[in-house]
Amino acid sequence: MNILYFSPGSCALVSHIALAESGLPYEVRRLNFAQSEQRSEAYLKINPKGRVPALVGDRGVVTETVAILAYIAQIAPAAKLAPLDDPFLFARMQSFNAYMAATVHVAHAHGRRGYRWADEETSYEDMKKKLPQVMRDCFRLVEDGMLEGPFVLGDTYSTADPYLFVMADWLKSDRVDIAEFPRVYAHYRRMLERPAVQKALAEEKAA
Amino acid sequence: MNILYFSPGSCALVSHIALAESGLPYEVRRLNFAQSEQRSEAYLKINPKGRVPALVGDRGVVTETVAILAYIAQIAPAAKLAPLDDPFLFARMQSFNAYMAATVHVAHAHGRRGYRWADEETSYEDMKKKLPQVMRDCFRLVEDGMLEGPFVLGDTYSTADPYLFVMADWLKSDRVDIAEFPRVYAHYRRMLERPAVQKALAEEKAA
Repeated sequence: MNILYFSPGSCALVSHIALAESGLPYEVRRLNFAQSEQRSEAYLKINPKGRVPALVGDRGVVTETVAILAYIAQIAPAAKLAPLDDPFLFARMQSFNAYMAATVHVAHAHGRRGYRWADEETSYEDMKKKLPQVMRDCFRLVEDGMLEGPFVLGDTYSTADPYLFVMADWLKSDRVDIAEFPRVYAHYRRMLERPAVQKALAEEKAA
Repeated sequence: MNILYFSPGSCALVSHIALAESGLPYEVRRLNFAQSEQRSEAYLKINPKGRVPALVGDRGVVTETVAILAYIAQIAPAAKLAPLDDPFLFARMQSFNAYMAATVHVAHAHGRRGYRWADEETSYEDMKKKLPQVMRDCFRLVEDGMLEGPFVLGDTYSTADPYLFVMADWLKSDRVDIAEFPRVYAHYRRMLERPAVQKALAEEKAA
């Protein structure tokens, strides 16, 4: 059994959708961030970083969305969630996912979690103010090139698609209108039609 | 032929070391950041993000260190730079690499590139001030658990090792003494003894 630790509205939804697509058996466990459950002694034994997602399986724990996505794709090859037989296309998928993790998600985090990198309220306000522009710059690159269409890698669905979906879902809270990016918006709506996306969204609410 | 675009002192050194370990033919091309060559029209055609590294091969371009590392390991399997036959261990390697990319490298960037996320000098000063603490928190996790020893994944060398080496090399400029983390320091010195590391460092200087 695979157990995914998540908090609502977090990037754990990306891995959750991938699990829903994979056909693997899984459960999700909700952490209560308001009660700092991610910093509890019990959870820090699972993930000493005190973050979500963490995927716990028979072999042990995997953290970091980029790693979890490739892992799910590799242990559920029949679901074809990654171009496993083509190292170059696999690298393209991973490149997209790494950009989401290290640039887009990081940019978003400056809107609410400036305390990770600074101590002054004035700095947090500065970061919040700049946030829409930073997110726009990221999504301009996605819109103009990275998103090949209809899926991120072109005709082939992959783990890059739920990652883009979740990052695009955050734009509203970052004060950016997703409609500024028509191809991203079309991808977002296409994703909302997928049963696995609907299933994951419902499971988050039920958990 | 594989061509790696780099700038001295950047994280491109991680991919450079992996190439040196791989046995693959490669060349390195230096971008002059002082002259904003990474924003030149010619380079933006290679990497629209205007960043290094970018690895250009016969099939096309791969960007993002996490993706490049897995790619090099996969196209040079004889070099054994990743546990390619074990999805769980491969995920552990990727988890480490993703943490370096999305947390450690990002933390470091706040010391010099605060303009990515804020606009005010006071914010940059705030980030610079907090930087050593943030890097210490990251390396505490590496020292206490992630680095299994002697290599990141234990007895097996992998692409996680050059990534840790380069991030550890940055500690000094982040005003952190690497000797605070004895296991990381021992790993760092072990890496400096590797011919591939010495070769990559020399090639950077020669380029």
